[in-house]
Amino acid sequence: MVQTATQVLDWLGIVVFALTGALVASRKEMDVVGFAVLATVTGIGGGTVRDVLLDVPVFWVREPAYLITCVVVALVAFFTAHVPQSRYRYLLWLDAVGLALFAVAGTEKAMETGVGATVAMAMGVITATFGGIIRDLLGGEVPVILSREIYASAALAGAAAFVALGAIGVPREAAIAAGFVVGLLIRAAALRYG
Amino acid sequence: MVQTATQVLDWLGIVVFALTGALVASRKEMDVVGFAVLATVTGIGGGTVRDVLLDVPVFWVREPAYLITCVVVALVAFFTAHVPQSRYRYLLWLDAVGLALFAVAGTEKAMETGVGATVAMAMGVITATFGGIIRDLLGGEVPVILSREIYASAALAGAAAFVALGAIGVPREAAIAAGFVVGLLIRAAALRYG
Amino acid sequence: MVQTATQVLDWLGIVVFALTGALVASRKEMDVVGFAVLATVTGIGGGTVRDVLLDVPVFWVREPAYLITCVVVALVAFFTAHVPQSRYRYLLWLDAVGLALFAVAGTEKAMETGVGATVAMAMGVITATFGGIIRDLLGGEVPVILSREIYASAALAGAAAFVALGAIGVPREAAIAAGFVVGLLIRAAALRYG
Repeated sequence: MVQTATQVLDWLGIVVFALTGALVASRKEMDVVGFAVLATVTGIGGGTVRDVLLDVPVFWVREPAYLITCVVVALVAFFTAHVPQSRYRYLLWLDAVGLALFAVAGTEKAMETGVGATVAMAMGVITATFGGIIRDLLGGEVPVILSREIYASAALAGAAAFVALGAIGVPREAAIAAGFVVGLLIRAAALRYG
Repeated sequence: MVQTATQVLDWLGIVVFALTGALVASRKEMDVVGFAVLATVTGIGGGTVRDVLLDVPVFWVREPAYLITCVVVALVAFFTAHVPQSRYRYLLWLDAVGLALFAVAGTEKAMETGVGATVAMAMGVITATFGGIIRDLLGGEVPVILSREIYASAALAGAAAFVALGAIGVPREAAIAAGFVVGLLIRAAALRYG
Repeated sequence: MVQTATQVLDWLGIVVFALTGALVASRKEMDVVGFAVLATVTGIGGGTVRDVLLDVPVFWVREPAYLITCVVVALVAFFTAHVPQSRYRYLLWLDAVGLALFAVAGTEKAMETGVGATVAMAMGVITATFGGIIRDLLGGEVPVILSREIYASAALAGAAAFVALGAIGVPREAAIAAGFVVGLLIRAAALRYG
């Protein structure tokens, strides 16, 4: 069940980040393969960097379902994304959800490898932010992490809430949910009032 | 002999990509070490990312001949590149040849580590495109993968042709050659008529 | 003692590079977490790339003190950096010191893993330059490695001096010191007269 909770976060994060990659591809008027490439690197980029740094097998290398999911998201976006005006707004909100999901899921996965809390939170922030960084570098956008709005801070707050609640004995599902909510609310407040 | 066929592709790919790196260095009027750095990261960058993701030893770390080859290519380019007008044209065509070579060689190397066809083709595309992506990011160019012309698609088509032909029993040398030709023709058509 | 000499170089390099990351964050008017992120990726980025390529455990993953140090440097910079005019000048000089430190420390660490001199020097150059490259890419600056001034060449000269002196029997502390001085003098000359 706990295992499932983390996996659900992970899959949701991959789907929403893949969608943000597809939206950037749409803004750049790329072809369908451009959509697939940008969706994939955004969806799996953060977790890939995390796994390489932790020196564990990269999560998608033995499991093609992750790649296929990103490509499917890209295809759906390619054939349905007809709302140019509002796309960037969607992008930032989806990115916020993915950020909060991956901050917790990335921290959790790092702790499972036995690293301490400081490094685990850093891995959560890396998982949450590097997919978007790669997306923006490849897509020729100003990296969202550079905007003056609160961004990496939200990921760090979510990761810290998850770690702190776990340390004081809160059940893992509750700590996961709380970490996600903290990260999302902070980022959402930054988007809404920032 | 098959071993040799893949190795030949690999070496040719490294040389032509190193040359594209040197041409970008030339456009930026870098010094000789800038030529060497850009030639090297372009020549070995894609294969390096592939090996790190597959968690196999990075191919050039125990074999200095790869680095030395890239540096030699850079030196030759530095002392002979006197044809400014036509350089960018050369760059795109060399990049096309390298793309087609690495799409097949990268897929082949990934399959040798036991991953499935989907992931292997993704590795072929990564090997074919990341050297150029790193070159363009470091060289301050708009990444060629972002151009509206067909690019990653050509690498994917070459990788897919190689995998499909191998799956139906075509001898490996023939499948390798066919994958290379498919990738190159598609990219060449995009350059010529795109 | 030798062990200590390399570690001292490493720690000094991390601190000065972290400071350059914080200065770029300051130029971009980032918030305090932006300072911490940019200081950290700059301070540990080069060594991280080196360790991933060498396939050894990434040095900071089991040792949170490195991360904490970078964050402390960022905090100090955030609350004291009030000298806008002169900041960029500081940045380039600090970067020069970090470059010379990491060129030697990175080469030394690579040689300890058993790679040959050519690859070890390449690792020294990578350790010395990639933190700054990542800093400049994330910070939206023109990568300093692209400037026409001598940059990677200085790192290479320092690494080569260290290797050459070691090969002819000079004691390691002296070779380390000489490599550092060679790298720093060449880069300093480029900054002063370039």
